[in-house]
Amino acid sequence: MIIDGKKVASEIYEELKKEVSNLSEKVYLKAILVGNNEDSIRYINQKKKWAEYLWIDFELFHYEENFDEQELLNKIEWLNDDKKTHWFIVQLPLPKHIDTAKVINAIKPEKDVDWFTKQNFWKLAIWDSSFLASCTPTWIMTLLEKYNIDVTWKDVVVIWRSNIVGKPLSLMMLNNSATITTCHSRTKDISYYTKKADIVCVAIWKPWFLTLDMINKNTIVIDVWFTVRDWKIYWDADFETINNNWNMITPVPGGVWAMTVAMLMQNTLKAYNIQNEK
Amino acid sequence: MIIDGKKVASEIYEELKKEVSNLSEKVYLKAILVGNNEDSIRYINQKKKWAEYLWIDFELFHYEENFDEQELLNKIEWLNDDKKTHWFIVQLPLPKHIDTAKVINAIKPEKDVDWFTKQNFWKLAIWDSSFLASCTPTWIMTLLEKYNIDVTWKDVVVIWRSNIVGKPLSLMMLNNSATITTCHSRTKDISYYTKKADIVCVAIWKPWFLTLDMINKNTIVIDVWFTVRDWKIYWDADFETINNNWNMITPVPGGVWAMTVAMLMQNTLKAYNIQNEK
Repeated sequence: MIIDGKKVASEIYEELKKEVSNLSEKVYLKAILVGNNEDSIRYINQKKKWAEYLWIDFELFHYEENFDEQELLNKIEWLNDDKKTHWFIVQLPLPKHIDTAKVINAIKPEKDVDWFTKQNFWKLAIWDSSFLASCTPTWIMTLLEKYNIDVTWKDVVVIWRSNIVGKPLSLMMLNNSATITTCHSRTKDISYYTKKADIVCVAIWKPWFLTLDMINKNTIVIDVWFTVRDWKIYWDADFETINNNWNMITPVPGGVWAMTVAMLMQNTLKAYNIQNEK
Repeated sequence: MIIDGKKVASEIYEELKKEVSNLSEKVYLKAILVGNNEDSIRYINQKKKWAEYLWIDFELFHYEENFDEQELLNKIEWLNDDKKTHWFIVQLPLPKHIDTAKVINAIKPEKDVDWFTKQNFWKLAIWDSSFLASCTPTWIMTLLEKYNIDVTWKDVVVIWRSNIVGKPLSLMMLNNSATITTCHSRTKDISYYTKKADIVCVAIWKPWFLTLDMINKNTIVIDVWFTVRDWKIYWDADFETINNNWNMITPVPGGVWAMTVAMLMQNTLKAYNIQNEK
């Protein structure tokens, strides 16, 4: 059975559209893109499309691959202070000559829609819900919630331990009382964990990594990434076989991006509200 | 086989004593205690004893249970600026009328020897080693290291998910490439994980919770807490039986506190060095 991320995203967009239309002030979302990474450009275009759909004012600052780190920091400082920028995104990855952590932490936490600053991470860790959470782990939690799947008491496996997905997702699951195992490239026997799991979240970027024999008949599979090789799409999980076996699974693409962008817009509104409370 | 925390702590004290004796400036460690929690007083006395052994200048500010939050914040501000305070501890737990998170985050990160501030937590999350790490998870990692137990590729179970021990320990293990399962009161079947585990860290504060039948013959047990009932000590793990069975295990008490305080002194020196680099 398919967990329909696109459908849920549509519902969220309609709710957000209503919310934005009731605001007295204009909502501004801005984005910085350095270089011409194809995935980044596609992703930025999705953000632009949906921001405009929601009547959110979207502006992109697009710089060349060799853009200077200090100039980037100056731009961030300007956006931090700009009254017509309620919040903004620095699209990752940044080129290698730029110190990503330094750039990210230059962003004011309350303008950090992508949630990478230390203050937001700390709030996540101590489960202070006023944080702006990273979009990918947030859509996973939201999707499960919309399908009435409570993670409390559940055995959950997260495959991959990135700062962007694996770690925050593990913490969110833990805060919601799931028993959480985080696996990665140095895990001896991933199947031992996935076979027991009620939910497996796979974000490993390896074609068809998670197969039917690794899970049980009730395991719900949340597949986060996919790989394109020779114009063909490979999911992290063996979608066809797992889906034919009646396990619940998210299809990618088709749902993941939609949900990620929906979460970004949701965070945008949350950031707007946090700023307006002051 | 016993993992001898007291012995390792002694070795660390001797190394630190040598390091302190080579410093040109005096090293100041200060502590704030609110109320008269018995464990806190005992713990503070340990800190004082070992600070003095290492020729670290130790000063305690001890306030009544009903001490005002704002006055506490003022004191912290004063210590943040005081040149004769290189770093200081706010002993937890604080009385209920005081907002712990607010107090902790008032401490300058570079003076936060107990490592609770958001900046230090964030550094832990992204594995920036310039953080000052929480003493309990740090001694666990140090003890394993001193016994040449590399956690890479290991299956590790952490029982309990506190902000002070469970979460940071899970992140440290993960950053060191252990496969990590974090269990708690809402875990269906802890044995499924502990039976497979190479290392089990138990910090659940429940008498004899972890028994021999829950682990395998090679499982290393790191027991963090103990409970006192009717003047009798109960460990979290069934120490006697597990030790008789030749599994490696830490005895508590006798090792845990020694290592915790040793880590505090080690962080103290680290904080001193970070400040002096500026």
